[in-house]
Amino acid sequence: MNDELKIVFLGTGAAIPTLRRGLPSLAIIKDNRTCLCDCGEGTQLRILQAGLHPSKIGYIFISHLHGDHIFGLPGFLSTQQMMGRTNALTLFGPKGLKKFIEHVREISEFTLDFSLRIVELEPERQKFQVDDFIIETSLLEHRSLCYGYGFFEKPKPGKFDVEKAKVLDIPPGPQRAALKQGNTIFVHGKEIKSDDVLAPPIPGRAIAYCSDTRPCRNAVELARDCDVLVHDSTFAEHHKDKAHESFHSTAGQAAEIAAKANAKKLMLWHISSRYDEDDEREMLAQARQVFPESYLSRDFAEIKIERPKNI
Amino acid sequence: MNDELKIVFLGTGAAIPTLRRGLPSLAIIKDNRTCLCDCGEGTQLRILQAGLHPSKIGYIFISHLHGDHIFGLPGFLSTQQMMGRTNALTLFGPKGLKKFIEHVREISEFTLDFSLRIVELEPERQKFQVDDFIIETSLLEHRSLCYGYGFFEKPKPGKFDVEKAKVLDIPPGPQRAALKQGNTIFVHGKEIKSDDVLAPPIPGRAIAYCSDTRPCRNAVELARDCDVLVHDSTFAEHHKDKAHESFHSTAGQAAEIAAKANAKKLMLWHISSRYDEDDEREMLAQARQVFPESYLSRDFAEIKIERPKNI
Repeated sequence: MNDELKIVFLGTGAAIPTLRRGLPSLAIIKDNRTCLCDCGEGTQLRILQAGLHPSKIGYIFISHLHGDHIFGLPGFLSTQQMMGRTNALTLFGPKGLKKFIEHVREISEFTLDFSLRIVELEPERQKFQVDDFIIETSLLEHRSLCYGYGFFEKPKPGKFDVEKAKVLDIPPGPQRAALKQGNTIFVHGKEIKSDDVLAPPIPGRAIAYCSDTRPCRNAVELARDCDVLVHDSTFAEHHKDKAHESFHSTAGQAAEIAAKANAKKLMLWHISSRYDEDDEREMLAQARQVFPESYLSRDFAEIKIERPKNI
Repeated sequence: MNDELKIVFLGTGAAIPTLRRGLPSLAIIKDNRTCLCDCGEGTQLRILQAGLHPSKIGYIFISHLHGDHIFGLPGFLSTQQMMGRTNALTLFGPKGLKKFIEHVREISEFTLDFSLRIVELEPERQKFQVDDFIIETSLLEHRSLCYGYGFFEKPKPGKFDVEKAKVLDIPPGPQRAALKQGNTIFVHGKEIKSDDVLAPPIPGRAIAYCSDTRPCRNAVELARDCDVLVHDSTFAEHHKDKAHESFHSTAGQAAEIAAKANAKKLMLWHISSRYDEDDEREMLAQARQVFPESYLSRDFAEIKIERPKNI
């Protein structure tokens, strides 16, 4: 089992695609399984261009129903059907997502032979398991109902200490296997706990995805101590008013969220098409004044996330 | 006034996008004004990549409501709104097009401040004027209601013969202008018709767009004597059965339509993602055996269409 965890940015722009930045979508890939966050128009082609396998996408997390975040869904679904997909797909998103998919399917007459489950979230914070992650949802502050998603990898059991096992007279076999799985066993009437022979668990990694929001407390809470925060950074500082009016954040505000949350790294995301590369460098500089570990997300860039070391 | 007429292919694939062929869309450009035929997912980005101006698109002709032909429409419209478009846009297409746009707008909450007119066509052949073209619609043979479109440029008045005008004693001024506009005038009591001083009219050019169809008589009629026929060519000859079952054509069948219609040039279009470049060369060879002026359409290729010479 490969322990690699990475984010692949498929589109990092906002609202309008440009030659440099496509519409919002990113992939979180672990153990050959992929979660997609948002699915702007063109995402299915970007998945191909990035060399990813669409059939390995088991879950799609939709932040909100504005077109730039969902107009790639119908094409993704119909292509998966035409490619003969058999494995299930689950979509998470705000109320209205089911209706959107149903209407589009009705008009364009496409059937789905694989299992498609659409989970419409409630505004209250929710927590559920998906693959190797605990997912947390949190309502952000946008014009329409918009959810942030936290991906919290479960801790990995610590390494089994063979020498300690020998000293405790535990022979190779089912008793060692039970300890590796976290169970308590009895050897010669003596209780042995898994902690006695396992190194401390290796903490899981955490990614917080906060698209399309004003700076808000929920984003800070969702991103608490995370390894990577991907945060709305639609505007530069001199457009702070525009950011507020349109329920978005500036790069500097995203950096404040990252600092308050004690995140390890911030990826500036959802960058307006009005800015050229010089403007974006300026936005990055503004963010780094507040939070030095800020980076510009770029289409097709990959970020590998290392597992934190034991303390 | 520039007399150039060209087709720019934006996406030339079928159903599923590939790295070589995007989803169906092409632009017909004359005098700085553009008509779009179909709008597959990703078309708005391809318009930018081709260096075209989306605000100059005044009309979009939708062949049918299958996803690969319409899933780019919502994004195109919302981007036009965000770019501050003010000029009107008209969509033509089958019944259901209005409902599609209404549903998507409702779910993703986008308003339009420019005038959007949606014309749902009747299955009977229709004829109407759009810019400098007479448009003819014709029902094709597909699984869902699918229209072919003929673009027939109006003839251009012949050149005014100044020498003849002098001989006929017509002074420069309003009388000459009237003749240039095709009117009859009287000079010294003598009737002079515009034909007396104008060279014969220069015939207009004609493009026939027949996406997604089995070979059918209506396609032949629409393409009669046209300069360029863009025709469904989803399959190669050894997949003739698949073509029939799925209401598409093979490259050879497209060539037969072009030959029967006496078209000047055939662009093989809507090519299945199952074929590689070698297969496509074979499809082209199959078409050329029947109709030598066959060509493979390619994404971002431009075809200039010369005005026919007077006979």
